[in-house]
Amino acid sequence: MRKILIIGSGKSSSYLIKYLLSKSEKENLFIIIADKYIAKTKALLNNHSNSKALKLDVFDNVSRAKEILAADIVISMLPARFHLMVAKDCIKHSKNMLTASYISDEMLALNNKAIEKDIVIMNEIGLDPGIDHMSAMKVIDHIKEKNAKITLFESYTGGLIAPESDNNLWNYKFTWNPRNVVLAGQGGPAKFVQQGHNKYIPYNKLFKRNQKLEVKNYGSFEGYANRDSLKYREIYGLEDIKTLCRGTIRKVGFSESWDVFVQLGMTDDSYTIENSMDMTFRDFVDLFLPYSAKDKVELKLQKLLNISESEPIWSKLLEIDLFSSQKTITIDKATPAQILEFILCKSWTLDPNDKDMIVMTHKFIYELNNKKYQIDSNMVCIGEDQTYTAMAKTVGLPLAIATLAILNSKITVKGVQLPVNKAIYNPILKELIDYGIEFNEYEIPFQTQN
Amino acid sequence: MRKILIIGSGKSSSYLIKYLLSKSEKENLFIIIADKYIAKTKALLNNHSNSKALKLDVFDNVSRAKEILAADIVISMLPARFHLMVAKDCIKHSKNMLTASYISDEMLALNNKAIEKDIVIMNEIGLDPGIDHMSAMKVIDHIKEKNAKITLFESYTGGLIAPESDNNLWNYKFTWNPRNVVLAGQGGPAKFVQQGHNKYIPYNKLFKRNQKLEVKNYGSFEGYANRDSLKYREIYGLEDIKTLCRGTIRKVGFSESWDVFVQLGMTDDSYTIENSMDMTFRDFVDLFLPYSAKDKVELKLQKLLNISESEPIWSKLLEIDLFSSQKTITIDKATPAQILEFILCKSWTLDPNDKDMIVMTHKFIYELNNKKYQIDSNMVCIGEDQTYTAMAKTVGLPLAIATLAILNSKITVKGVQLPVNKAIYNPILKELIDYGIEFNEYEIPFQTQN
Repeated sequence: MRKILIIGSGKSSSYLIKYLLSKSEKENLFIIIADKYIAKTKALLNNHSNSKALKLDVFDNVSRAKEILAADIVISMLPARFHLMVAKDCIKHSKNMLTASYISDEMLALNNKAIEKDIVIMNEIGLDPGIDHMSAMKVIDHIKEKNAKITLFESYTGGLIAPESDNNLWNYKFTWNPRNVVLAGQGGPAKFVQQGHNKYIPYNKLFKRNQKLEVKNYGSFEGYANRDSLKYREIYGLEDIKTLCRGTIRKVGFSESWDVFVQLGMTDDSYTIENSMDMTFRDFVDLFLPYSAKDKVELKLQKLLNISESEPIWSKLLEIDLFSSQKTITIDKATPAQILEFILCKSWTLDPNDKDMIVMTHKFIYELNNKKYQIDSNMVCIGEDQTYTAMAKTVGLPLAIATLAILNSKITVKGVQLPVNKAIYNPILKELIDYGIEFNEYEIPFQTQN
Repeated sequence: MRKILIIGSGKSSSYLIKYLLSKSEKENLFIIIADKYIAKTKALLNNHSNSKALKLDVFDNVSRAKEILAADIVISMLPARFHLMVAKDCIKHSKNMLTASYISDEMLALNNKAIEKDIVIMNEIGLDPGIDHMSAMKVIDHIKEKNAKITLFESYTGGLIAPESDNNLWNYKFTWNPRNVVLAGQGGPAKFVQQGHNKYIPYNKLFKRNQKLEVKNYGSFEGYANRDSLKYREIYGLEDIKTLCRGTIRKVGFSESWDVFVQLGMTDDSYTIENSMDMTFRDFVDLFLPYSAKDKVELKLQKLLNISESEPIWSKLLEIDLFSSQKTITIDKATPAQILEFILCKSWTLDPNDKDMIVMTHKFIYELNNKKYQIDSNMVCIGEDQTYTAMAKTVGLPLAIATLAILNSKITVKGVQLPVNKAIYNPILKELIDYGIEFNEYEIPFQTQN
């Protein structure tokens, strides 16, 4: 039997495991899920004879290396900063490896060693990064084959709440790691290129400078720029492109309201608040507002950020009980970001029957024979329940499909990779359709305002 | 002869050296200034027989330790992050040491070792930190001796341009390290307490939330909160104080204009700009503005930050040629902060005859027998020329006086210290008066709005 070792198991593992188990008889696979806590994993495995949940301290170098040595291929589902230690073991023992995370500089530096050992370390093979690269490159390669010139590529992805479960004013709930949502955008400015001009948006303007997005059949959204899009000119082979921007999707109005937290300083994770335990939500807000002998907290916030009570922003803040003098924080020595997460979790946690939704939308403009053309490409995926979420499906299936393809030598690239080559993305995108993850492409009459 | 080793020599060394040389005959001192570049130091020493300029690579551990071993006392004038390596040598060789920088956590951790070796590592003994602590503690101790209760302490300091040299719209020139000015405020939120309420101001609101300050005989200024004032409750022995804030002084209108750079993201030092070499100032500004097919750079900035051409902010931006399409940046792979510094240095560099000015102002409110009292305490110091600046004087003299006092066992505290005790600050403040550094204290009729 061929042993697939999955290190770490979180919310995104359900479909990954389901897919691999479903193939395990025919493909002769044995799935080992190694983590510190394995109760939930056991439920997912449901005593399947081709599987094992293994209690493992992933920081125990000896035990981890032993399991990696015994495996035929390794998937790291750990938080991104821990992939490197797994990758070093995989290089040592010549095992192929996959992650759904962005390639770090340290990971990239392992490229030569991986090639020497004749293995692939496949990264960014989840949803975003992952399906975004693959679905974009399919269209990009197709346009390039016509000898057309691509002048614009914009791509936005979001993990949202399904329309049928969307019942709060923010049109948002935590469908994945809340901490990542609170800290989003803090890793440096958003970088992109627009009409040939490089643009850098600092964190304090990121949520203000969002743009409207229409997703055919799914209505209006908004997107804000995400991380460093400039480097994708080279990765996508679009060195001369005039406009390239990747970003995050939210429902309309979310970003300007989220910006309130940014402007107040509530998303800061770099220091702790004195006496946070038992502090009321209201007192927490007041920490970030000027002192006044007469003005209430609400009025001070309105004045500081120039918001009026009639604005949708204000209703959103009231909905999360931000000014409550009853509700208290129950974390000691918490950072502002941890406290904000605590407050938002009281309002944005999924109800038992809530479903999540993934929305991805690409826009391409290209020139052929002095004419301009536009293609829009959209993918929407709605979760089944809170185990088999759209997030778990879109992150886990590309990983699972790629794992089997590497094991079966259908994907044969070596080194530290991401899925931008036809030989990788074609079989994966094709198989994803069988699972309902499909892009709808539309030729749009070119609009000059683009 | 008693050897005083000064490691590192910069703009702030002139008065330090002048003072020690002037005392060298009578006090039997020999002054050694060790640095990588010693041309300027030699000019300051002017072949004085009780001195030597020593070419030393301060990162050469062997040579540095050798010089420290041979000295009787050590002053580190290196950038703050390098004091620790000097301190470790001083502990090893049981040498007293002084710095004018804030005590880092790592420095504080050396306290027990310093006490074991019976030495003092005296920090924060320059201007700010330094004279601010000493002059404040003098008043605080005086009020406490009356058994009065201090309810408010606010303290602001600034390195400014002297009125006679103040000829630009910003009322500001670089009188000390420009890089520190550009990066000011980025080390975390400003923390302080006001009327019993802790307050945290994030960087993006720091320059907006400034307050007006009147300095008797010197007119109107403004101040913005600086670093962590909360910890000074303990350091100053004011655990129950209702209001405590330390901050930075600028001339009126500076902060709201500086905030333009903050809002645009131009003070970011964490990443480099593509193709910064030969970029025009105008193109640099445009990096931070939304793309527009029709709007000029100026109009885009006005729209983004809601500034009109009739505002003083706008005239200030024009004065520094921020929108020039002629002037270019001549630094490759520069960070936004480095480029902003480059642009500002074109406008804010001192003319040959310009003088600098230090302004420090304290405000104290205390209660005695159910009555409230207010004391204001101000110090203004104007430089002689660009060598003997007010900054060099107010940083260097406390260091120099303390050095001699420690050498002569007039100051006998041990461990990692800052100058908040009477035994330290009294002799130093007294001697500073001989050099024209004197605080004027005013009993102000208590105003209820405080």
